[in-house]
Amino acid sequence: MARLPRKNDTASITARQEALHLDGAVTGIDLEPYAKAAESITGAAVIPVSVAQLRIELGRYDLSDAGEVVETGRELEDVVVPLAHTEGSLTASLQRGARAVEESGGFRTHVVADRITRASCFVCRDAGDALTLAGWVEGHVDEMRAWLQSADIPELSRFAVLREAKTHVVGPMCHVLWRFTTGDAVGANMMTRNAYALNMAYVVPNAPVAIERSLLEANMGGDKKPSFEYFQSGHGKTVIAEAMLTDDAIRRVLRTSADDLAELAWAGTHGAVASGMQSVAFTPASAIAAVFAATGQDLGMVGTSSMAHGTERRVEGGLHAAIRFPGLEVGTIGGGTTLPTAREWLALMGCDGAGKVYRFAQIVAAAALALEISASSAMATAGSENFFRAHFERGGLR
Amino acid sequence: MARLPRKNDTASITARQEALHLDGAVTGIDLEPYAKAAESITGAAVIPVSVAQLRIELGRYDLSDAGEVVETGRELEDVVVPLAHTEGSLTASLQRGARAVEESGGFRTHVVADRITRASCFVCRDAGDALTLAGWVEGHVDEMRAWLQSADIPELSRFAVLREAKTHVVGPMCHVLWRFTTGDAVGANMMTRNAYALNMAYVVPNAPVAIERSLLEANMGGDKKPSFEYFQSGHGKTVIAEAMLTDDAIRRVLRTSADDLAELAWAGTHGAVASGMQSVAFTPASAIAAVFAATGQDLGMVGTSSMAHGTERRVEGGLHAAIRFPGLEVGTIGGGTTLPTAREWLALMGCDGAGKVYRFAQIVAAAALALEISASSAMATAGSENFFRAHFERGGLR
Amino acid sequence: MARLPRKNDTASITARQEALHLDGAVTGIDLEPYAKAAESITGAAVIPVSVAQLRIELGRYDLSDAGEVVETGRELEDVVVPLAHTEGSLTASLQRGARAVEESGGFRTHVVADRITRASCFVCRDAGDALTLAGWVEGHVDEMRAWLQSADIPELSRFAVLREAKTHVVGPMCHVLWRFTTGDAVGANMMTRNAYALNMAYVVPNAPVAIERSLLEANMGGDKKPSFEYFQSGHGKTVIAEAMLTDDAIRRVLRTSADDLAELAWAGTHGAVASGMQSVAFTPASAIAAVFAATGQDLGMVGTSSMAHGTERRVEGGLHAAIRFPGLEVGTIGGGTTLPTAREWLALMGCDGAGKVYRFAQIVAAAALALEISASSAMATAGSENFFRAHFERGGLR
Amino acid sequence: MARLPRKNDTASITARQEALHLDGAVTGIDLEPYAKAAESITGAAVIPVSVAQLRIELGRYDLSDAGEVVETGRELEDVVVPLAHTEGSLTASLQRGARAVEESGGFRTHVVADRITRASCFVCRDAGDALTLAGWVEGHVDEMRAWLQSADIPELSRFAVLREAKTHVVGPMCHVLWRFTTGDAVGANMMTRNAYALNMAYVVPNAPVAIERSLLEANMGGDKKPSFEYFQSGHGKTVIAEAMLTDDAIRRVLRTSADDLAELAWAGTHGAVASGMQSVAFTPASAIAAVFAATGQDLGMVGTSSMAHGTERRVEGGLHAAIRFPGLEVGTIGGGTTLPTAREWLALMGCDGAGKVYRFAQIVAAAALALEISASSAMATAGSENFFRAHFERGGLR
Repeated sequence: MARLPRKNDTASITARQEALHLDGAVTGIDLEPYAKAAESITGAAVIPVSVAQLRIELGRYDLSDAGEVVETGRELEDVVVPLAHTEGSLTASLQRGARAVEESGGFRTHVVADRITRASCFVCRDAGDALTLAGWVEGHVDEMRAWLQSADIPELSRFAVLREAKTHVVGPMCHVLWRFTTGDAVGANMMTRNAYALNMAYVVPNAPVAIERSLLEANMGGDKKPSFEYFQSGHGKTVIAEAMLTDDAIRRVLRTSADDLAELAWAGTHGAVASGMQSVAFTPASAIAAVFAATGQDLGMVGTSSMAHGTERRVEGGLHAAIRFPGLEVGTIGGGTTLPTAREWLALMGCDGAGKVYRFAQIVAAAALALEISASSAMATAGSENFFRAHFERGGLR
Repeated sequence: MARLPRKNDTASITARQEALHLDGAVTGIDLEPYAKAAESITGAAVIPVSVAQLRIELGRYDLSDAGEVVETGRELEDVVVPLAHTEGSLTASLQRGARAVEESGGFRTHVVADRITRASCFVCRDAGDALTLAGWVEGHVDEMRAWLQSADIPELSRFAVLREAKTHVVGPMCHVLWRFTTGDAVGANMMTRNAYALNMAYVVPNAPVAIERSLLEANMGGDKKPSFEYFQSGHGKTVIAEAMLTDDAIRRVLRTSADDLAELAWAGTHGAVASGMQSVAFTPASAIAAVFAATGQDLGMVGTSSMAHGTERRVEGGLHAAIRFPGLEVGTIGGGTTLPTAREWLALMGCDGAGKVYRFAQIVAAAALALEISASSAMATAGSENFFRAHFERGGLR
Repeated sequence: MARLPRKNDTASITARQEALHLDGAVTGIDLEPYAKAAESITGAAVIPVSVAQLRIELGRYDLSDAGEVVETGRELEDVVVPLAHTEGSLTASLQRGARAVEESGGFRTHVVADRITRASCFVCRDAGDALTLAGWVEGHVDEMRAWLQSADIPELSRFAVLREAKTHVVGPMCHVLWRFTTGDAVGANMMTRNAYALNMAYVVPNAPVAIERSLLEANMGGDKKPSFEYFQSGHGKTVIAEAMLTDDAIRRVLRTSADDLAELAWAGTHGAVASGMQSVAFTPASAIAAVFAATGQDLGMVGTSSMAHGTERRVEGGLHAAIRFPGLEVGTIGGGTTLPTAREWLALMGCDGAGKVYRFAQIVAAAALALEISASSAMATAGSENFFRAHFERGGLR
Repeated sequence: MARLPRKNDTASITARQEALHLDGAVTGIDLEPYAKAAESITGAAVIPVSVAQLRIELGRYDLSDAGEVVETGRELEDVVVPLAHTEGSLTASLQRGARAVEESGGFRTHVVADRITRASCFVCRDAGDALTLAGWVEGHVDEMRAWLQSADIPELSRFAVLREAKTHVVGPMCHVLWRFTTGDAVGANMMTRNAYALNMAYVVPNAPVAIERSLLEANMGGDKKPSFEYFQSGHGKTVIAEAMLTDDAIRRVLRTSADDLAELAWAGTHGAVASGMQSVAFTPASAIAAVFAATGQDLGMVGTSSMAHGTERRVEGGLHAAIRFPGLEVGTIGGGTTLPTAREWLALMGCDGAGKVYRFAQIVAAAALALEISASSAMATAGSENFFRAHFERGGLR
């Protein structure tokens, strides 16, 4: 096969389209706004976007100088959430869950923490040296943070602020989890730059022991790969969404009962254990993927951002339902969020641009909880009849 | 907030767009082809699609009557793969990996198995009853398969063929993993219908013990939730892609060495263990998500389909690299694959429509391996310099 | 340091004792019966053994020719269980749990399956070859079973019967899980002999592809190492113990309530998920270790045999409690069970010698459930007051 | 069955022995020294103890006021390690590994950290309250530490010093991981007392939100239950043992090669991943159990203390082998260590009594590494011939 041209000028794009005989829907969209998004751009993919309405008590948050997420207020709002997907019944189901919560007083959401990690690895002569290095790294975090802020290296990002360095020595390897905050961007790229600079311009020259090999990433960083490390400690924004469903809303809107939901949660949690799920919830990835696709998030992060821990508890007068997302890797600036449709869908939620990432993370979590509640309710009825009906009646495309 | 209309007729769509003040890129696309894809369709999301060229020795496969995937031939082909994403350097990196493999003789891919599971749960009085039920279910699989094929129930799908039923008793719960083949569709919906019918019309009426509660799904089914169960046994198409990289291609194209790659693989595998990754590879989700988004696959399945086990081994004259995907949840018919841009991108690979799903699954696996090889190579250089360069120079959007 | 003699004749033993200045309790026991148990025997360890009384409805089981565990009857018995340990309150707590169950009608136990695995690995040229080998192995299990029974190789064991061979291909590796039954012995050693013979005398000479390297065990076998594979599929005897506790017994004997126990189970299961436990129960290892130490089981298997999945469910009139042990690696012949004190403690339970291993496995499971119930009850009271009291008042040695 | 007496006076012990017709080896040992070790003591279990000689460069360590383990020196010593077990070939194999290391310069061991955790759970009204509580707990650690040291509550232990409190909120649950140091004892009991006191006398009365339920332990504490949490962060003493094996020692003593060992390590690590092992090594539990049984450690902790991460790396002139034990739950005072044979075997290593626990932890780790090296070597030969020979020739009892 002849090699296609690689550039994104109009002539190259057209040459690729012609060589590949593309002339339908995929080439009908003006690619100019996307020319810098990737190499060898040749067409587009279109995904329909539906919407759901949610009532959420959102927290307002600041990041303190010390890197803590601090709540400064709370407000009840109605938000319209865009969902890009082609799964029949998903939007209707999510909307049903949102309705039940609205009638119960609305979702409440909390941003718990904000950290993202690039994990490098320094291979030393032996474990003794690796331990010496680990101790030195942990003792120099303040110096390294200051160095990142002041060093005259143009590639460095001032937005990716080093917060902690967690070390883990195995054999002769000293793994270092560089933990950053990255503002309103997910920050994978800025983190990479700063971690690389730390490794090559700070650690390697100054280390108290010989480093045989320096690896920018050796799988402890959690980048697009689910792991227990980040299921627990978080990679991105750690968010909890919760709702106190009333018995009345459960019965009228969800057409089940709190007892049935609790029994399903019991069986489902044990099923999760029995099948070796690290992350226990019903179907968080459906909602996460739909919001991510609409808003220009990195779809390679759907799996990691969908790690979740859902709980349901029978309480007086209803059911408490909650979901913890340890690491929503979301941004409101940078990457795909700058592109036309993504920006517009973010704006619909009041989440476009700087200062909006905690708001956005909370909305994502609430949308996912809405779907959890509704999908669980369908499954909790006798024989899961309602779930079946939803798939049967609405799932025309599938 | 006033409730938006829910229908997908033109007036309702327009009403939603106006109520939400949407008037930019998201509403500029004709939504008519998407009206049945979801409820409350209101606009579109556009993702740019780039392309990469891969040389792959693809297997041809038939599904035997017994449900085994049987290889009937192999052919070396050049394939152009569409990648929908906005991550700078991803396409170029994947293409670089593909080039190195092409110069080494091309990828080889294998479809190993084909099963997808819906796991129901029957709650009994006690474990004794649950064990009796489990024995009964396992002893009636042939009867149940025949019943599904012949029962006069319009909701049943003839495409979802029951293959096995694996039971797992915990406490009073008898979990039943209904294992199906679903032809060229992913089959989530058809599987749901058939599993529901089995539960309600076959198991519950005929069971030798009292069933207190029947749940269509209780988290052992692997639907959009990564688990060890399916990391090992597979959910969708189990595919292995491999390549025998020559030392020459590694040096010239990948600018590293087989020894450096082997050393990185060693550190990366131990990093994966240390961080509790169930699934061990470098960045499979990036490629999976990109092909899925271009071709109308279910993006909620990016996490599960990205579960992978990658290996690299130093061999005489080069490096053997392979990746095992236990469960690629891909389809070439049904769901989002029927929509305009998806269909066109599938056609580019010769993967549109019936009889193409094994071909498609292999191409997805090869594309992911291309990226694994290239990303690893960037990381394996001294201090991972090349990886950093890629992020720095090309990652403009991030 | 001078090298000590290695033999177990009286002179060598005495020489070691003198060189090491051992002259107290450790040398006061006649070592003659232990001279073949290990190399360089030099003394003894003494562990006190306490006893608890349990009422259990035990199943009677046969192993069918096809390798299935078949129940042939059930009988309610009172059994005295020996517990070798030095943890204050453990025996009293276990006895309390047993009392509550006795007042509720007794434990019921079930042997679900019987398999133990030695997993070999054949490294091939590439994944294609490894897949060919995997298909060949799976297609020759009957021949290999027959060969093991008839081959004229003195090292082979006729007791270790090959049942299935599960293959798993990753990269160029063809892992083969040789699944055996081993009668009344745990069978590690006989399995090793037979697997080695299969590998070297059957697979390597007859394989349809070249095998570069043959490894008797490469970590898929589950030998003394907990893994999800065997948490689910089992390694040894898969046993479930259950009890239907009455509200009255819970209140009077356990001094808590079914609601409190259910609430603790809910929090504990979510705590297990949050901390990444593969195996979910409260304290099964305490009971397993105590019975193992008394009866000459392999203490290196305490961790694997303690993998467990416990459930509690509120039911009308009380609470259903159960625990599933996927792999109790227990024997009533061979290994340490032949030694004086072990044999005597096995005899106390009617579990010494051939034909007793399913009985013994059930008793172990029931003992562990007794402790689960009592320890949970102590923890479920307000602030876990009873648990604290037990540790405070009885834990004198700790 | 008549209820047996429960006390440990001579008459009760004799009454039990007679009622159970015990009159052999199990009753031949004077039980007086064991009368306080457990309830309903009725006899003894005897396990033979063999010995192996190891050359180890041991670190000397102090615990700083801040709770850090600080190295103050290193010394090369020859140590004789007692091994209580009945597995033929185990002692000889461990001794062979030790010999190879001795000829390569000896083991080196490092104590990395010292923490043990009791994890309580406070169930609140909702996640918002649980987060408030979590923030409050984390902000009062200094006050709580001081309170534990000064409060006039006789049950409190001054040895169990609170170091940190890590919180984890899921749903309405605020899990609190109370992290202690406990001196030379494992400390389970003293930790329980102090955690209970913290919960009931400090947290509940002072908490800023209502606590609905306080649970002393809800499965995040790692007590006798392996979990990822403690595989990584440690529960007990975190220790690394390492050795730099020379090619010569590998060839002469271990009868294999560094390349063969590296290849086995590669296959074994991937086998571990494929089977879902959290903890990756070859057979650490065998050695851990043997030393634990000899020295009066808690055998219920064999599984957790055997969690390990082993690595092997081909280096110039040989192979670097290491093993990381995140949580050796060992003590040199308290519990079973005070009993006659245990005390004597501890004394053999110079590990009896106060101030010896870091020394003991290092010896345990070195012994386990000795066995890892030897067992791996047997497995790494062609077809694992040596491993087979060991089992065949020496495993007479099995």
